[in-house]
Amino acid sequence: MESFSFYNPTKIEFGKNKEKNIGKYIGQNGIKKVLLVYGSQRIKEDGLFDSVTHSLKENNIEFVEFGGVISNPILSTVHNAIKVAKEQNVQGILSIGGGSVLDSSKAIAVGTLYDGDVWDFFGRKKDIEKALPIFDIITLAATGSEMNGYAVITNEKNKRKDSIWSPCIYPKVSVINPELQKSVSKDYLVYSATDIIAHCIEGYFTAKKHPTYMSRVVESIIKTVIETTEILIKNPDDYEARGDFAWAATNALNGTTTVGISNYSFPNHLIEHSLSALYNVPHGAGLSVVIPAWAKWYYKENEAQFTRFAKEVFGKNSAIEGIEALENWFNKIGTPTRLNQFNLDKKNISEIIENLSFQEEISKDDLEKILNFAI
Amino acid sequence: MESFSFYNPTKIEFGKNKEKNIGKYIGQNGIKKVLLVYGSQRIKEDGLFDSVTHSLKENNIEFVEFGGVISNPILSTVHNAIKVAKEQNVQGILSIGGGSVLDSSKAIAVGTLYDGDVWDFFGRKKDIEKALPIFDIITLAATGSEMNGYAVITNEKNKRKDSIWSPCIYPKVSVINPELQKSVSKDYLVYSATDIIAHCIEGYFTAKKHPTYMSRVVESIIKTVIETTEILIKNPDDYEARGDFAWAATNALNGTTTVGISNYSFPNHLIEHSLSALYNVPHGAGLSVVIPAWAKWYYKENEAQFTRFAKEVFGKNSAIEGIEALENWFNKIGTPTRLNQFNLDKKNISEIIENLSFQEEISKDDLEKILNFAI
Repeated sequence: MESFSFYNPTKIEFGKNKEKNIGKYIGQNGIKKVLLVYGSQRIKEDGLFDSVTHSLKENNIEFVEFGGVISNPILSTVHNAIKVAKEQNVQGILSIGGGSVLDSSKAIAVGTLYDGDVWDFFGRKKDIEKALPIFDIITLAATGSEMNGYAVITNEKNKRKDSIWSPCIYPKVSVINPELQKSVSKDYLVYSATDIIAHCIEGYFTAKKHPTYMSRVVESIIKTVIETTEILIKNPDDYEARGDFAWAATNALNGTTTVGISNYSFPNHLIEHSLSALYNVPHGAGLSVVIPAWAKWYYKENEAQFTRFAKEVFGKNSAIEGIEALENWFNKIGTPTRLNQFNLDKKNISEIIENLSFQEEISKDDLEKILNFAI
Repeated sequence: MESFSFYNPTKIEFGKNKEKNIGKYIGQNGIKKVLLVYGSQRIKEDGLFDSVTHSLKENNIEFVEFGGVISNPILSTVHNAIKVAKEQNVQGILSIGGGSVLDSSKAIAVGTLYDGDVWDFFGRKKDIEKALPIFDIITLAATGSEMNGYAVITNEKNKRKDSIWSPCIYPKVSVINPELQKSVSKDYLVYSATDIIAHCIEGYFTAKKHPTYMSRVVESIIKTVIETTEILIKNPDDYEARGDFAWAATNALNGTTTVGISNYSFPNHLIEHSLSALYNVPHGAGLSVVIPAWAKWYYKENEAQFTRFAKEVFGKNSAIEGIEALENWFNKIGTPTRLNQFNLDKKNISEIIENLSFQEEISKDDLEKILNFAI
């Protein structure tokens, strides 16, 4: 068990109708004016926008709208929103949407209190010292952004998808209402499942030593996601399964799975970010292509843990059988496992690798080997 | 999945030598003078007191000592400490010891800012609105008090053992150094194991519905405790096992295991409190007598969950086999499972029941049935 500090200041409000209290939660934090960030017009069609703005008005919270955030959110959108937030002197940022909207909101929260370009902080080039308070209603369970201090944004100019982390950007209050998450398409449900699994296996496989309790927590998350994804594909209205799925998603990246481990990395996310920055593939879909490929290349570095995974999650006897079982499950639920499912092939590999030339964690040769498993 | 709010403001500092930073952690919270609460003189003999006071002095934190807290802590000690804390105008409470010292410290933190008798808050008769900040170095992994808002104290006058809960009494910073926990006796190690298991099974068995992810988390804690207890009995110096045990203990009662469930209770603790208030049995030892007895009476109310427990934790096929496996494990590690191991017998049952006459959760007849299983 490696030494660690653990602190998670986010307050979670989980359950039916909790979004109706968002004005109260914001008011309790002394905030009077927010930038209300969202993606498409869908939240205006399905009533969520009305519920939220009604609650804000009831609690005398002013708001300024900023819509149009897209999946795989981009820096130019963040820049535009920061401009509005500064002009309007907002005191907080309210995100209504999935991880893309929330990550954008986190970047906006940082950039609004900064004179330079918020991209200065990405890639951990600079420490974040302050940010506006962030509140959110998370409408897609995948990124875990609702309970962590990470945000991932793509800089369209240089095709770099990079992240920030800071204790300042943990949301103050996050509302998780599984009922708001059931309108997700079947595609995005399965991409979410992959994202959640990816979040917890990165450390599970790459840390040198993995405390037993932590391994069990990761396995619990993965087994829950496998079980509930299959239920939700057949019955999207199953609230219990949706709730289990959502809470597993939150726990996959809120610090719960990485206490006591060290020297771990996020190689699957590293590689996937190149894919989605170049070709705008959905993040989870990119991950389900990368994970089996990476695992087939990597497993001998930690065969004991891959064998444990195979047994505990799939009841299989060897590392390779476990990896294949995971890949088969991805195929079963309909998330891609080969580059050609994005109409990409061997000739795209060098471009993907070139887009990762800024990093030193995985060599070009090894990236080639990994990506060749995805052909 | 029932609706819930989740918020845990404690910062955990886990690892070797972290107690040497306690002065820094306290100073970072703006505190300049603490009441340093502890139990026996052991911490002065083993060097921990010196490490702590050195760190306090280095960080210009004044301290006033208050030693002598006993296991199954009593109200009169808390009253005496409150008197000192008030006279000395302390700004915070620093606890060095196990759950008894920390629970006393939490009660002291509340009582110091209250004009009446702190017992007024016990049994949830009154809401706690404020408390001094609390810091701790937890030297016994059992109660989980280091990361929750509970405290349990015995009122010697009326033999009532009761609790308080408040967001105000979550410690600000808790130091968990497994190396400080290895001097625990074998008896207290096994009593701790029972306490940890009890904490997570109360909700696991008594909630009407139990989300799958939460069941898996509980089973992960219990399996980890079973495994690491057996390792530590043979090798108390095994740091990895000690670390896993400690973190499982913290998670058993920090909110992690009770999200999404409702209408659950703590019947085993309820009954055990009567035992320890009357006869001063160690809390964990009382629990290992109560749990199998209560389970044998209760299991038909939730046979599916008891059957799941049997299978997931012990690889057994039926509820009763699971209960017996747990009881056998208690016997194996050497924690009591019968009242006669405390030199108590059938004639003590009415006294134990009478001491529970304040509550309505379990009828006298049912208490009689339960306790008869413990003969």
